This record gives sequence, C-alpha cells and structure tokens, in this order.
Amino acid sequence: MRYARERLRWNGWGSREVTFETKGRDREVWDFVRQAVGADALPSTPPTPLDQIDLPAIRLSPAIVEGLGGVLSPDRVRTDAYERAFHALGRSYHDLLRLRRGDLRHAPDAVVYPESAAEVLMLLSFCEKHDVAVVPFGGGSSVVGGVEARGADGQAGVVTLDTTRMDQVLEVDPVSHTATAQSGIYGPVLEEELAARGFTVGHFPQSFEYSTLGGWIAARGAGQLSNRYGTADKLLVAAKVATPRGEWRTLAFPASAAGPNLNHLVAGSEGTLGVITEATVKIHPVAESRRIAAFVFRDFETGAAAVRALVQGEVGAAMIRLSDADETRFFGEFRNVIEPHGGASKIAEKALSYAGFADKCVMMVAFEGGQRQVREGFRRAFGIATRAGGLFVGESPGKAWWKRRFEMPYLRDPMMDHGVGVDTLETSTEWANVPRLYRAVREALAGAMKSVGSGGVVMTHVSHSYLDGASLYFTFVFARDVSRGLESELAQWKTIKEAASRAISEHGGTISHHHGVGIDHAHWLPAEKGTLGIDVLSAAKAKLDPKGVMNPGKLVRAGG
Amino acid sequence: MRYARERLRWNGWGSREVTFETKGRDREVWDFVRQAVGADALPSTPPTPLDQIDLPAIRLSPAIVEGLGGVLSPDRVRTDAYERAFHALGRSYHDLLRLRRGDLRHAPDAVVYPESAAEVLMLLSFCEKHDVAVVPFGGGSSVVGGVEARGADGQAGVVTLDTTRMDQVLEVDPVSHTATAQSGIYGPVLEEELAARGFTVGHFPQSFEYSTLGGWIAARGAGQLSNRYGTADKLLVAAKVATPRGEWRTLAFPASAAGPNLNHLVAGSEGTLGVITEATVKIHPVAESRRIAAFVFRDFETGAAAVRALVQGEVGAAMIRLSDADETRFFGEFRNVIEPHGGASKIAEKALSYAGFADKCVMMVAFEGGQRQVREGFRRAFGIATRAGGLFVGESPGKAWWKRRFEMPYLRDPMMDHGVGVDTLETSTEWANVPRLYRAVREALAGAMKSVGSGGVVMTHVSHSYLDGASLYFTFVFARDVSRGLESELAQWKTIKEAASRAISEHGGTISHHHGVGIDHAHWLPAEKGTLGIDVLSAAKAKLDPKGVMNPGKLVRAGG
Repeated sequence: MRYARERLRWNGWGSREVTFETKGRDREVWDFVRQAVGADALPSTPPTPLDQIDLPAIRLSPAIVEGLGGVLSPDRVRTDAYERAFHALGRSYHDLLRLRRGDLRHAPDAVVYPESAAEVLMLLSFCEKHDVAVVPFGGGSSVVGGVEARGADGQAGVVTLDTTRMDQVLEVDPVSHTATAQSGIYGPVLEEELAARGFTVGHFPQSFEYSTLGGWIAARGAGQLSNRYGTADKLLVAAKVATPRGEWRTLAFPASAAGPNLNHLVAGSEGTLGVITEATVKIHPVAESRRIAAFVFRDFETGAAAVRALVQGEVGAAMIRLSDADETRFFGEFRNVIEPHGGASKIAEKALSYAGFADKCVMMVAFEGGQRQVREGFRRAFGIATRAGGLFVGESPGKAWWKRRFEMPYLRDPMMDHGVGVDTLETSTEWANVPRLYRAVREALAGAMKSVGSGGVVMTHVSHSYLDGASLYFTFVFARDVSRGLESELAQWKTIKEAASRAISEHGGTISHHHGVGIDHAHWLPAEKGTLGIDVLSAAKAKLDPKGVMNPGKLVRAGG
Repeated sequence: MRYARERLRWNGWGSREVTFETKGRDREVWDFVRQAVGADALPSTPPTPLDQIDLPAIRLSPAIVEGLGGVLSPDRVRTDAYERAFHALGRSYHDLLRLRRGDLRHAPDAVVYPESAAEVLMLLSFCEKHDVAVVPFGGGSSVVGGVEARGADGQAGVVTLDTTRMDQVLEVDPVSHTATAQSGIYGPVLEEELAARGFTVGHFPQSFEYSTLGGWIAARGAGQLSNRYGTADKLLVAAKVATPRGEWRTLAFPASAAGPNLNHLVAGSEGTLGVITEATVKIHPVAESRRIAAFVFRDFETGAAAVRALVQGEVGAAMIRLSDADETRFFGEFRNVIEPHGGASKIAEKALSYAGFADKCVMMVAFEGGQRQVREGFRRAFGIATRAGGLFVGESPGKAWWKRRFEMPYLRDPMMDHGVGVDTLETSTEWANVPRLYRAVREALAGAMKSVGSGGVVMTHVSHSYLDGASLYFTFVFARDVSRGLESELAQWKTIKEAASRAISEHGGTISHHHGVGIDHAHWLPAEKGTLGIDVLSAAKAKLDPKGVMNPGKLVRAGG
C-alpha cells in the first residue's frame, strides 16, 4: 500500500504533507477570493480535530469483529477512530462539510484490508451470512457519496472494505498491450510500474494521485487525456469481481459477439454488484513526445465549435480542454495574484481585449505519441482552430496547466477554512445540445446561489470530447452561510445541487459524465435509465447480491 | 421495404437475379473445386423446389392469426408457404442444408410486418398474452441459428416479426454526427440516404446488402472497415427496444458515468430481451479519399505480427486484412480459373517463390479519410509493413477485392448445388495468443474433416484488429457425403463445427467475434461468460420477458 492512511487527511484532500501553495501571498489570495464570491469578509472556519469528535458506537458485535479477523488476520481489521473517520465518507464538498464539523454518524463499524481476491470472497461470504453491509473503498475520492459507509435497514452494521492492500501488478503483456493488476493499486504506483516496462495506462483523472484502478472502473471515470486513452470503461479488457454469490469473471477478448459485453456491467457498477478485485486494462507505449498548445476564442460557443471541429476532424489530440470566459478569467486572475506577471503580460491582455478577446475562452490542445505524429497533429489542429476563430497564444499556458494538473483538489481545503464553498458537477451531451445545456446549467447554478443568499462564481469547461458530443464541467464557488450550523449549510448546498441536477436532467444531459451516481445522483437515475433500465440493473444486483449487502443505497437497490 | 421477399432467395443468398459469375468457365471452376476438396467427382445436388415441400400445419388458432391482423392490418400478417419458408431459418451452411432438402419443420406459423415501434409493442403484448413465441427477423442473414423460428415447450406457436417495413431514417444530426433510423432498414438503403447528406455509418459486413441496422446491433456484428468505424456495438449511441414489459430506451450521451452503459446490454441481446425498433448510431462524413495497398508476407505469423505493428503503431487504417497461405493460394487460383492471367503474372508468381514467398500470405491495408490523412497513413503503413517483412505488391489486389467484397455469399449456393460444403466460423483473441489459437483451430478443422471422411481446405484470415488482439476467420470447404440423407449431412457438419468450437473455447478464443451466439453457440456460452455472467443475462431476460416469448432458445433463457 502506497499511502498509510495516517499520512493522508481524513477530512480533506491527499497527503498531509502537501498544502496548496500561495507563495507567501495568502492575504492577496483570500482578498481575491472574497471579492469573487462577493463577501464583505471571509470567516475563519477551521475543521474540528478528530480527538474532539465522538464517533458512534460500534454496532457490530465483538464476535463479528473477531470473525472478520479470523477471515483475514486481526491486524487487518481496524476499529480505531482514525480508520473509521477516514473511511466514513468520500471527498465531496458536502462530505467535507460533515467531516470538518465532526459529523461522523456514518463512520463504518470496522475497516477491513484484504490482500487477495480470495480474501475478498471470504469476507463477502462472511458479511452476507451475518447481514453486514460492505462498502468497497479504494482511494475514497468519490464526490457523489459512492463510499459513504451506510448500511440498509435491518443490517447488523457496516464494514468498509479498503482495497488498497491489493496493489500488485500481476502481469504486463507487452505483445497484447494489456496489464493485469489488483484493483486497489493507486494511480501513481500503477503508472510507475508500467513506466519501468515502457508502458502507460494513460488514465489521469484529477484524483489520479489518490484514486485506484478499481475505483476508476467502478465509477466509470475519465482521465484528462481521455481523447487519446479513453474513459475507464473503455480501458477495461477483463475483470475479476468478488460477489456474495462467488467470483464473477469476464474474459479478455479484443472484441466479441458472444452476447452482451459484460465488462460494461462491471464498469459503472460502483461496488453494488461486488468488489472488483483484479482488472486487465489496455496499456500503451509511453509516448515519445508531448506538446500542448493554447488558443483563445472570443466566446464559449465559438470555442466549443472549435473543439468539435478538432475531434470530428480527427486531429488525434490526447486532450482538448476549453474553459469558458468566467473560468478563464477566474483562474487567470487567481494565478496572477499568486505569481504576479510583469507589465508585458498586462499589455498583452490589453491587446487581446482590443482585438475582441475581452471575454476570451482559453483552449488547450495536447498531443502525445511519436514525434512526427505529434507534429502532424499539432499542424492540423493549428489550422482547424485558427479557421474556427482561435488565436494561438503559445505553449506556456498548457505547460503551466500540466505542472499543476493534480493540484486543484488541494485548494478546496483552505477555501473551506475561509468559509468559502466550492463544488463541481459535470455532464455530457451531444454536440447539437452543448450550447443549450451549458446555458441552462449555468443559469440554474447562478440562480440557485442567488436564492440561497450567496454571490458566487460559476465556471465551466469542456474537458472530454467525442465524435458525437462533449462533457461540460461546472465549478461553482460561493460564500457559505456558516452562521447557522451544519444542517443549514447542507441545505444551502443541496438547493444549488438540485437546481443544477434538474437543469441537466431536463435539458438532455447525463446526470454524470465521470463522477458517477453514488447516493447523490441515485434519485436522478430513473429519469435517465427508464424504469426498465433500472429494473434490469436491479435484477442483476438481486442475482449477484441477493441479500443486498453490497454498498447499500448507491446506484440501485436489489429487487427493483 | 427495399426487398420484397419474393425477389429474394428463400433457400439461398440474396437476390434471385444475382448468381455467382463464373464467366463461362463453369467446367474449369468446378474442376478446380473438386480437386481442392479431393473428390473424384462432384455430384449434382439441386435444392428441392418449394412447391414439392410440405410445410407443417399452422399451430396458431385462426383467432390468434386474426388477432395479429387486428393489431396490425390483415395484409401484414402472412401465413403463405413462401413467407413461412423464407423466415424458417437463417442462412448458415446447416440452414441451407435443411432448406435445400425441404426440412421446414421450424417454419413460423405466421410472419408479421409491423411498421412502427408502437405496433411492435402491441404485437409483443398480444403475443405474450397468448403465449406465442416471437422471433425478430431483419435481413435474416444469421449464420448461428439466431432467427430460427423455434418456440419453447408449451407455447402456442411461433410468429416471426419481420422488421424490414420499419425502414425509415428518422433523423440525421449533422452537428452531433449521429443518425436515428428504424431498425429494419437495410444496409444499402441506410447508406444511400446518409450519402445524400454527405455521411456514412461505415458498417459494411459481408452481409451488408441483405442485413439490417437492428440485426447488426442485436448480433454485435463487425463491418469490413471496423478498424476505422468500429464494430456494431461501438456505433450504437441510443436504442429503443420494444419488450413484452413495455418500451426500454437508452439515451444518447457521448459518454456517461451514470451507472453501467445499458447500450451494451442491447448490443448482443439477439432479440432475446426485446425487439430493437429504433437506433441512433454514429455517422461520419463520407471519406474524401480511399486507398488499398497490398503486401505479401512469407508466413502467417510474420503477417500477423505486421498487422499488430500497424494497429499498435496507430497508422489509422480503415481495414487490415491478412489471409494465410492456404486462403491466399485458394482464392488466387480460384480467381485465375475464372479470369486466367497472362504469362507475366505467372512469371511474377515464380519470382515471388524464388524470393521466399512460395507460401505467401497477402495483406490488404485500406485507408479512408482526408487526402492528406490517407497519404500519411499509407506512408507510415508502408514503412511498418516493409520493416515487418512485407513486400508491397501494389494496389490492384485490393481494388479487385473491394469490387467483389459482398460477392462471396453468392458462391455458397452453387457450391451446394455441386455437393460441396462450405462454412465459416470466427473468433478473436489477444495478440499474444493469436498464433496458438490459429494453429489449434486449423488443426481441429482439418482433423475433423478427415474424421468424417472428407478432404477439404481450411483457410484463415485476420479481418478485424485491435490494440490488444485480432479476429481469426476460418473458412472450410469440404466434400459433402450426400449419399445418406439430411441427418447424416447435419451430423457431418456438426462434428466439424464442434471440433472447432472446442478448440476455440479451450485455447482462449471467444466463441464468436461477430456472428453471434444464436442456437449454435449457446451451449458454449457458459464457459465464456461464467455461471454468474449467464445468471445476470438470464435475470435481465426474466425482467423484460418474464414469460419467455422473445426468441426462445437463443443466447440465454429466462430464469437462469
């Protein structure tokens, strides 16, 4: 296991040794954020230390806890406060609200650390027999309630099954370009081991450093270079899934017409059908070359049309990322506060304004591959982007983004320390509907923030694009009303979230492009999948998990 | 509907107006075939005319037939001999054996022609109520028993639901590059209507002229240009499926993390969950340029390694097709019999032999796209193929193949007239396993043909390749033992087929790369999907088709 749990934040992001870097310009940074959310002052809202929090009593009987120890070994069954707190929730905004206020009512009764598929099978069998809910947990970075340690009514308790001791690369096939690994392997460990053989999976979600192979697949995640390497469901070649009914395997075929492709039932199952214990995924030779170019566009619609032209024009980009004007401005100014640019930069900004790019939207296009492939791709992208109204602004914005691409989650913790809320949500839709959905969700977010008495910023980007459509990723930053306690804060968030989810659902978007369903989106799922779609998923669950012990309350329930 | 049923062969391939062209060299052709299968003489084995065949009595009561007419209109419920015969079976070798011998015991009791999704829903509801099996039928080109009009025990009869009057293109979205059409549209009609708008689906299975959009998806087919346009499951963006429980829809999202992607339960469902009535699929601008280059390799393993190098080298080919030495030789000589080449060609063959290509394997690589893209792809392919041991032999073999690419199924009928059996089967596996599986299946086929007392030819090609592996397509031609009646002939075929299927299953192949499961492969499916995988599919079926009226006996059964 790469990260001992005590080296990580139980109530925030990532490593305790890393904090968001403001380079000594703390005062300026928070002044900027204060103005952005329209607040007169930012309150100090530090988290409650764990030793001041009362955890709920352990509901599991000592006999069951001892039984779990018998299945594994006693040292791999943890019931201490830190382990229970660390595994209570995911890392969404409202999870952090609760963790920081010390609301640990959903802490698991025990945390177990199996080391093999066989141990997971034994655990599930034991838990099913004793009616104990099992919550699979990899990196725990879910932002939709996917790992919240809740059981169902009538269950004896909740065990969180932490997969991160199952972290071995089992096989690398340099001929078939596939690798098989245990599911609990963290992104960086998997990539390091593959890099030593000259390969990469190429899956780099923003959570990359603290998420696992199994989590990527279970939640159908998407990495920043998905244009080249595909989303997590497309990486998957074969899986081993431990279910209460036994082991369910899919085999590795490059393509097959032997009935429906059940890998696509594994991907997105979010631990509700079983625990993914091993996965075989596609790998690619480490790219010999990389290049990231940046362009600016006059407005989002023009930029989005350029993204479409690039992807439909088959330029072969690894990433195409377009920020709208609000996001471009916010992060531009934010970065300027931390690392003030000289006068030359200001003159350049002014020139852009005069040229009609006052509300500029920046687009980054990355290429990876052979040198000639990258050069040719860039050449074509330059032509298409320019003809689509883009102005090439060099490679430094892209390089700067690349360096900081896993950093943003660290900014949320100090934001929360300063009474500022920040959350994200995402969707996707067909190209023809992108402008309409963009406007609808933005308006819903802005309106809802206003309705709960907060100013705020709504920022949007397209980060994943396809021949037929694109994702839309929304970040909203707002002044929290910290004066009235946790429930009020959760209600404030919920008002905003519901408004956005409704706008997505009613305007042709999927309820999630890559965050998943979890608890938060479960009640939006029937509108998207239809009654029969939900019935089919429920029937699969009833078959594999007849007693409903697997990750209760997420995605679908048994029985239908 | 493009093809009135009476214009098509009820007991053979395609249009009655088209026959395989031997250009007046009939005697030479059959002499060549005779030698190839090692027979002393080829018997004359013409098919039994329909008017000499007794069809089974219609089991459905007149009231039910009338009821079907009430749901649709009486003229769209057919019970005449031609319609029943046409829809009795698919078009596999052993289907043709039965059709040609007049074994129509599995003819449906009635054939219905709905024209809309709403009519299909009403039909299914009616049939479920009256315990009537429903067999969805598009082009009817299944070669695995997928459309055989069989009911289950206790059912009142069998209705074949012919989708080909549902043949409208409903929407073309030139922005999102998707098109929505009714499922019964034939390939050429769909392509013509899209071509008029500048688009193509790019799905060209060998059955293209006589297969339908819904059939492609239901059976997870693959087209000849799948390297560029993807297999049928990858084309699918959204589907409307009529089930006995009502309409099941999937929505069009370019990507989503909202639970498992249920399009992948629709694709490959083979009519066992319901009838696909409409499908939204990806479309692409018609390519501005196309080029097909041919190379020869010294042996199959070298050629397969070159295919791998091309696809993993991301040359962006639309098709890479490698024939082994036996296939290259057979079709080369066969073609020479029909269109004798001059002495120059013979000298070229001789020169190739001296150069070490006596057992040459031909590979064709096709590119489609923008002119520059095609040129660049070809340039890279030339380099990779040459370095991998390939010898460029020009563009004429590819051009000749392109012209005849939908012609081969027409050859089977005259083969059968001459007492010659020809069947095909296919699989796929990871690259590392391609040579082993190739050898195992070839040996199984050759051994089994010998065991049933026939000489014969086994030919193999790779026609679909992926980053992680490739398909293997086997054609076997053998002398039928026509002296002992239908059952004996079916047994002869079954011996060969079972030997090949066992070799596939035991050597890491999928039981089908693109033909599907149907009846023929159903008993091999549990080994591939596992007990739990079959259970999950059965649970889905039990939910959508609780009385088991949908395409009984194919793929999986309700209940599990």
